[in-house]
Amino acid sequence: MKRQGMLIVVSGPSGAGKGTLCNLLLKRDRNLTLSVSVTTRLPREGEKEGVNYFFTSVDDFQRKIRNNEFLEWAIVYNNYYGTPREFVEKQIEDGRDVILEIDIQGAAQVKKNYPEAVFIFILPPDLEELKSRIIKRGSETVDSFNLRMKSAREELKAIFMYDYAVLNDNLESALLKMQYIVCAERCRVSRNKNLLEFIDGREEFL
Amino acid sequence: MKRQGMLIVVSGPSGAGKGTLCNLLLKRDRNLTLSVSVTTRLPREGEKEGVNYFFTSVDDFQRKIRNNEFLEWAIVYNNYYGTPREFVEKQIEDGRDVILEIDIQGAAQVKKNYPEAVFIFILPPDLEELKSRIIKRGSETVDSFNLRMKSAREELKAIFMYDYAVLNDNLESALLKMQYIVCAERCRVSRNKNLLEFIDGREEFL
Repeated sequence: MKRQGMLIVVSGPSGAGKGTLCNLLLKRDRNLTLSVSVTTRLPREGEKEGVNYFFTSVDDFQRKIRNNEFLEWAIVYNNYYGTPREFVEKQIEDGRDVILEIDIQGAAQVKKNYPEAVFIFILPPDLEELKSRIIKRGSETVDSFNLRMKSAREELKAIFMYDYAVLNDNLESALLKMQYIVCAERCRVSRNKNLLEFIDGREEFL
Repeated sequence: MKRQGMLIVVSGPSGAGKGTLCNLLLKRDRNLTLSVSVTTRLPREGEKEGVNYFFTSVDDFQRKIRNNEFLEWAIVYNNYYGTPREFVEKQIEDGRDVILEIDIQGAAQVKKNYPEAVFIFILPPDLEELKSRIIKRGSETVDSFNLRMKSAREELKAIFMYDYAVLNDNLESALLKMQYIVCAERCRVSRNKNLLEFIDGREEFL
């Protein structure tokens, strides 16, 4: 039976190791593919169209925003970046699973535009260290320690928007958990659209 | 962090191998425990109270039904059988995961009374053979082949009530899929009730 692919959204605070985990996961699971973003920034040496990014103009990017062609988008250092809906949906139709490593704000947009994605939050082992980093990153002026501590907590509370929490206290065990989550989600009845045809003997089951 | 346990409901047509799979899963995963049913039938030699069954009287069983003390119950060959809510909930509170191997009708009752359970449907590799068995099991009188074929199909359509479909074409790979599903579900944010305490540094994360 032909399974539909799925979109796997991976977030986590910086220092949680989500980049390393995503790269290892891609190497281990040949049915996974990395999401390719659209950007308005200029290609750097060696970067290839459609591999590292889809490069485009600001005008074209803004037109795509108006046409709802992004699962999420953001402006970073005056450049636009976005996840193209069409690229992701094409991969998924072909039965491939797409990984999207993205920050909390981007994940929230994806959740709105593509709720059937799988949302994984990577937690670093030492939350105290993380919180002090979040606090340091905050404004250094008048706001009180308590206020900054509260905002660190609020940032971590984004985890409740996610389906799964994976603690990265050990790289191999965190990676296995991610592999298990991907394998389990592939068994989901709701992702196997041809189950009825399989029941009727008109389809093979993968 | 203390994780809540979960209830794992496993169903599938006879011949799908769900009993073998559940027993192997219990052996491999020491945090799993088998649900113990309440029954009104008499103990057979060697059966122990609280291990094989909780034995009780018809009067007591009917009182428990009225008090909504079962996640599901049924009458089989004049004996009552039921899954006691209290036993399951106690295990789950203690962080243990409970496996309940049960037919489709029982699973539907559990779904109603305990929707947060994980529902897994085991599919046999040869659906055609299964369908001919379902058809043979049906009435041998006037009803047409087509009608019986339709009911076989209806029985299999119960799969859409389940979260996961596992094809048992190979025992080891089906068993691994069940292990992955259990591990993935343990990572669910919604099952880790103390995440907020973890974020606040008041709890360890398992």
